Amino acid sequence: MSTAPATTTPATADIGLIGLAVMGENLILNMESRGFTVAVFNRTTAKVDEFLAGRGKGKKLVGAHDLPGFVASLKKPRKVMLMVQAGKPVDAVIDQLVPLLDPEDIIIDGGNSNFPDTTRRTKMLADKKLRFVGTGVSGGEEGALKGPSIMPGGDPAAWPAVKPIFQAIAAKVTDNGVEVPCCDWVGPEGAGHFVKMVHNGIEYGDIQLINEAYHLLSGLLGLGAADLSKVFAKWNTGALDSYLIEITRDILAFVDPETGTPMVDLILDTAGQKGTGKWTVTSALDLGVPLTLISEAVFSRCLSAQKDERVAASKILGGPVPAFTGNREQLIQDVEMALYASKIMSYAQGFALMRAMAKDSGWTINNGAVALMWRGGCIIRSAFLGKIKDAFDRKPDLANLLVDQYFAAEVGRAQASWRRALAAGIAAGIPMPAMTSALAYYDGYRTARLPANLLQAQRDFFGAHTYERTDKPRGQFFHTNWTGHGGTTSSSTYNA
Amino acid sequence: MSTAPATTTPATADIGLIGLAVMGENLILNMESRGFTVAVFNRTTAKVDEFLAGRGKGKKLVGAHDLPGFVASLKKPRKVMLMVQAGKPVDAVIDQLVPLLDPEDIIIDGGNSNFPDTTRRTKMLADKKLRFVGTGVSGGEEGALKGPSIMPGGDPAAWPAVKPIFQAIAAKVTDNGVEVPCCDWVGPEGAGHFVKMVHNGIEYGDIQLINEAYHLLSGLLGLGAADLSKVFAKWNTGALDSYLIEITRDILAFVDPETGTPMVDLILDTAGQKGTGKWTVTSALDLGVPLTLISEAVFSRCLSAQKDERVAASKILGGPVPAFTGNREQLIQDVEMALYASKIMSYAQGFALMRAMAKDSGWTINNGAVALMWRGGCIIRSAFLGKIKDAFDRKPDLANLLVDQYFAAEVGRAQASWRRALAAGIAAGIPMPAMTSALAYYDGYRTARLPANLLQAQRDFFGAHTYERTDKPRGQFFHTNWTGHGGTTSSSTYNA
Repeated sequence: MSTAPATTTPATADIGLIGLAVMGENLILNMESRGFTVAVFNRTTAKVDEFLAGRGKGKKLVGAHDLPGFVASLKKPRKVMLMVQAGKPVDAVIDQLVPLLDPEDIIIDGGNSNFPDTTRRTKMLADKKLRFVGTGVSGGEEGALKGPSIMPGGDPAAWPAVKPIFQAIAAKVTDNGVEVPCCDWVGPEGAGHFVKMVHNGIEYGDIQLINEAYHLLSGLLGLGAADLSKVFAKWNTGALDSYLIEITRDILAFVDPETGTPMVDLILDTAGQKGTGKWTVTSALDLGVPLTLISEAVFSRCLSAQKDERVAASKILGGPVPAFTGNREQLIQDVEMALYASKIMSYAQGFALMRAMAKDSGWTINNGAVALMWRGGCIIRSAFLGKIKDAFDRKPDLANLLVDQYFAAEVGRAQASWRRALAAGIAAGIPMPAMTSALAYYDGYRTARLPANLLQAQRDFFGAHTYERTDKPRGQFFHTNWTGHGGTTSSSTYNA
Repeated sequence: MSTAPATTTPATADIGLIGLAVMGENLILNMESRGFTVAVFNRTTAKVDEFLAGRGKGKKLVGAHDLPGFVASLKKPRKVMLMVQAGKPVDAVIDQLVPLLDPEDIIIDGGNSNFPDTTRRTKMLADKKLRFVGTGVSGGEEGALKGPSIMPGGDPAAWPAVKPIFQAIAAKVTDNGVEVPCCDWVGPEGAGHFVKMVHNGIEYGDIQLINEAYHLLSGLLGLGAADLSKVFAKWNTGALDSYLIEITRDILAFVDPETGTPMVDLILDTAGQKGTGKWTVTSALDLGVPLTLISEAVFSRCLSAQKDERVAASKILGGPVPAFTGNREQLIQDVEMALYASKIMSYAQGFALMRAMAKDSGWTINNGAVALMWRGGCIIRSAFLGKIKDAFDRKPDLANLLVDQYFAAEVGRAQASWRRALAAGIAAGIPMPAMTSALAYYDGYRTARLPANLLQAQRDFFGAHTYERTDKPRGQFFHTNWTGHGGTTSSSTYNA
């Protein structure tokens, strides 16, 4: 079946990897360190030689200068992992690989592909008798090297062959006294990339919340980087214990050797947003799931990028002068609780999104297993995710994390502080888009009767959109001729 | 060229309209009342007879039972307006019409089509020598009858033929002492539907803000519908003077004749969201424009729809008991100012979105002309939009409404009240997603240095994403080896 030219390359490699950017290189070295022989290819083949002569020197790697040679070096069923740019480059490499592979060979896309693309590729390759896996890989460059979180989905027939390698290189955590890898099968089609997308969305949220806490403490209390580092160090010993708090501690303590200034104070405050954060919000809009905190985080990046406009506006638009006169230690605690409670909201929203997607797509996504995969290895790894795993152990079909007994009690414990911190920030003019959005979600979710009754009346008034009544069964729709002079025709198609 | 069967129908109609839902019927009656003869067709032809024997009786209407007869009744260049459901039905009707029309005939889509569809249809019909107009029509059923706001875009060659009819039926407002129609050419391709989409997004925001004000006043002060109606009546005489405040006043005063209870208290608090609100948010994500308030409004509708979850959560999740002990009249004023200032943020975001789209698409969208079109006829019509028109008259390329002298001063006047109202709502546990999001935007937009410096450090720490420095020129990117043991390879493609 293979149309590859006859070659004398012996098939010695357990897996092959295409794409020698930082994540690809580190995954290769991780695999090799666990005893696997890895074939290596890159479009710019000089990178292959450079890597084999450098970081890969003396290791069980098989370098290739062309794809037929690369494919020939793989044991069957062949496993080819792509770490190339998401989008067209993935399709281009797949197109080149297909004629070289045999039935039951496996292509794995480990980049940040958008999940509908992964669904499409899984089907397209199944038609060609090939097996496709789209997997999320998180942990940054260090995670890739030492143990990332890996979230595979796609063709389930590929999983038995991929599992030993992925679970060997993944991070490990202890769950109920047993060491388990942060990698398990997520689901069919694009399920793996979908879960990775939500992971990244949550990462946007976590980072934004930390930024707001940093802004509150520096703005209200005038704390400098070194003092802030100590605050984050302390927080990292409590409920917020996590990789992102830990690196924030380290970043704030890092002094630029050139200037002697804290490095963070020298960095420009403009961030990009593209890809997974935006996709997460779009998915939430499609599924009708409130995902307000991550949306605010994505838009905050957009606002940060409008640097010139902000600088100009800062000279025109007034606000209160931050002047905090209360108890400073209490405020630090309040901000910690604001960050913590807001983080609970963000995860509640993210897991609700996965639940809605599972229902909509027919995929079975095990939310507890996802929490466990994120518990270690990835950027959002934290003690907190262990508590989420516990919540899903208690009730696998939990509608929302907030109604779990542990999280309900934790928010109860945090909320007075949370409200105080937000009031202080609002009075002082410090923007807290994610934290205030999180509180609005909490207060909305626990409100049995929201003001949407007025909304429905308004839509019926101007657009004859009809409404349901509290004193009639659901599913009966009513229209009122509010003005006495409109018609009685109700609208079924027009949305003014 | 026309393949229509020979027919003896005389071509007497100035325009034809397909689709007899409430908006279609009312547009027909509006056109007829301005002296135009209108041909009428509907897929279910019984509706044509019913309409001609009912609301259309004795009027200059030409009923048709088939499309060839309908087309034959139109004067050339024929103008066919579709008021059918957005999406496939529009394409289906266009496909049926094309073989019946001659070069330079005009098809007008007056439904809520998504603007990329309108761009596609404009090009597709231009290839067939036909002229396509995609137009927003807003004003609900009453506006359609008495004078809507009309936002046409598409093939500019169609405009001279369509203009006399559209400007005759549109609402009229006075601008600098001159009566002008709330209808003008918006721009090429999907520009008209894009502007209508933004209108609808802003409508989502306005409605959400009114809902939050209603919730704050009823929750904090315990005001009932009749008292609230008086509050809105008063607000309608000030800066908030607008159609939506006016109908809110009337809705709150409306008593259900069956039960003697205020109607609003009987309406179920669940709202739908689909279509234009969501599209507006997606466009903002695509263009990287912070559009937080409308996003919160869309997600609030999603949350309102989760009625059963909310009722269950209300029994589990605690919060403060609303207990307001301050000055009640002051609070009512504070809420008015919170609504007003938040509304300014929403329009600032919406107009910034149109500015970004114009830049991205190459369309020329005249923001001042758009403000004038929205000034009357449509759902968001208000005195406020006249102030926006004035701002764009002062500076047509204004980067953001907030830096206009009038709006900067108005926010300055409102902000102490705004902050007090939000603090009261937060302390009382009343959700205000849009109002708090609006304040976060204001405080973010006027902040020269946001905490995104920390964000960039974090992304560089875990993903080698690089950053710019405040002490170096823009466009130079730096990477720090934060831990001393990571590599120096920076990431160009991987987004952890």
